[in-house]
Amino acid sequence: MGDNEAAIGETRFERGQRILSQQPFSVLLGTELVRADEHGVELRIPLRAEFLQQHGFAHGGLLSYAADNALTFAGGMALGGRPVLTSEYKINYVRPAVGEAVIVRAQVVYAGRKQAVARCDVFTLRDGVETLVAVGQGTTVVVEQPASTT
Amino acid sequence: MGDNEAAIGETRFERGQRILSQQPFSVLLGTELVRADEHGVELRIPLRAEFLQQHGFAHGGLLSYAADNALTFAGGMALGGRPVLTSEYKINYVRPAVGEAVIVRAQVVYAGRKQAVARCDVFTLRDGVETLVAVGQGTTVVVEQPASTT
Amino acid sequence: MGDNEAAIGETRFERGQRILSQQPFSVLLGTELVRADEHGVELRIPLRAEFLQQHGFAHGGLLSYAADNALTFAGGMALGGRPVLTSEYKINYVRPAVGEAVIVRAQVVYAGRKQAVARCDVFTLRDGVETLVAVGQGTTVVVEQPASTT
Amino acid sequence: MGDNEAAIGETRFERGQRILSQQPFSVLLGTELVRADEHGVELRIPLRAEFLQQHGFAHGGLLSYAADNALTFAGGMALGGRPVLTSEYKINYVRPAVGEAVIVRAQVVYAGRKQAVARCDVFTLRDGVETLVAVGQGTTVVVEQPASTT
Repeated sequence: MGDNEAAIGETRFERGQRILSQQPFSVLLGTELVRADEHGVELRIPLRAEFLQQHGFAHGGLLSYAADNALTFAGGMALGGRPVLTSEYKINYVRPAVGEAVIVRAQVVYAGRKQAVARCDVFTLRDGVETLVAVGQGTTVVVEQPASTT
Repeated sequence: MGDNEAAIGETRFERGQRILSQQPFSVLLGTELVRADEHGVELRIPLRAEFLQQHGFAHGGLLSYAADNALTFAGGMALGGRPVLTSEYKINYVRPAVGEAVIVRAQVVYAGRKQAVARCDVFTLRDGVETLVAVGQGTTVVVEQPASTT
Repeated sequence: MGDNEAAIGETRFERGQRILSQQPFSVLLGTELVRADEHGVELRIPLRAEFLQQHGFAHGGLLSYAADNALTFAGGMALGGRPVLTSEYKINYVRPAVGEAVIVRAQVVYAGRKQAVARCDVFTLRDGVETLVAVGQGTTVVVEQPASTT
Repeated sequence: MGDNEAAIGETRFERGQRILSQQPFSVLLGTELVRADEHGVELRIPLRAEFLQQHGFAHGGLLSYAADNALTFAGGMALGGRPVLTSEYKINYVRPAVGEAVIVRAQVVYAGRKQAVARCDVFTLRDGVETLVAVGQGTTVVVEQPASTT
């Protein structure tokens, strides 16, 4: 997340949707913003055959993308809508990811003036049942100049 | 990485290429195996417009995918070619990623019977010059049954 | 955590206390087990002047020790009391740590046959008020032979 | 690390030694600065019986402390000697730690204006032989006001 000034009157959800639509990689993967409020964010990625690895599970790189984006969307909202970038995060994969969609929920555990720390849970949705497949934790930082990460 | 028995007479590089070609997500992203030897692996992803985020940089999720895959390819080779999966990793983004390609090099720092720990450096290539954009560290584990991560 | 067979009839709390008393480093630091149940564990370390760094805050190394031990105690209990060791973890420091004690609570988010993934929150206690100072996430693995981490 | 202005004419090594001596926790553990130059830092902690866990290995918390401090000393030097604090790090334990001393070497992989990212290798020294026991990676941030981590 991160970027251009929040448009006047824009809700968190509208802002999140706008930024998501401005990320070509998220458009390529079909990521949808499900929720964005004071409790955090939820993203959803319908699983397609081209997102798998050689065992037929969703590729870890897709789950990582989901975690990265959710952590930073949550962090960016907690930092007041200023442009932000992911600084770092870690992810633990706990189960093979199979199903119709990947769902990731992130919530901020700390937000200061310049950085926010958030956690996320990554699930797969299969026949209406959610299964935890990965957990993440990371840092979002405010970007002073759009062209720099620090 | 991870998967099917190594074919007889297959070199590390051939095996790596075969597995990469069996990962639909890697095929979607156009990942190429550049090197796979006793020192580690190198992957290369030509950057396309659809891999960017809203500031025009390569999306962190793409760099994460690159780190994840390189760590696990390197770990899998150090674990003797048995089926493996990424268990966990962390990544620090250090500079905005711009250029014609993402290059990631991973090398194993420890390999036991069941798990390997590796590090990776992620670069962008621009006008023939490499720039470090992220660093990672993570664990690869041997998969006992193809359908389980533990 | 990790170690010797659980004594017959020993509760989780008793087992945790026994192991803590068998860790010379935990005895040196004065760590107390406050809670150990199906929801996780809570450890408490009364802050002493010799645990500080140069700004007068608790040293990050002390908070790391607290996170490491709590993650592994929680993981070990979820893994059925078999000998375990910390495999890896990450920690984010979010506020300077000042107060009378460090309190850390860990809970398992996934437990398989051989490894468990847990999260923890580290607080300081000051004048009866808890303040979050760090958050962690990590992996505990079952030790096959007491003398090996893998 | 982090702290007071660098004294005039102080070398990196002298500055490192001074800060180490100002950390009561490092004094308690007996940490020695072995090297501090443009390539990074090396710390050494003679192992004592009270630093062990229940299997007779050095406690993970001690190795974590070593990693944390080395990453931040290296980061702090790369950030020009301004007051800094550890922001976050991750550690992978790879072998049981036994021997006469813990040695940790850290080197910076990126330093900007406000933060530095470094890696470290933790070894044990036994009968003159070094064995890698853990690897780490983390972020050091410049402290604007001594009383705040962000």
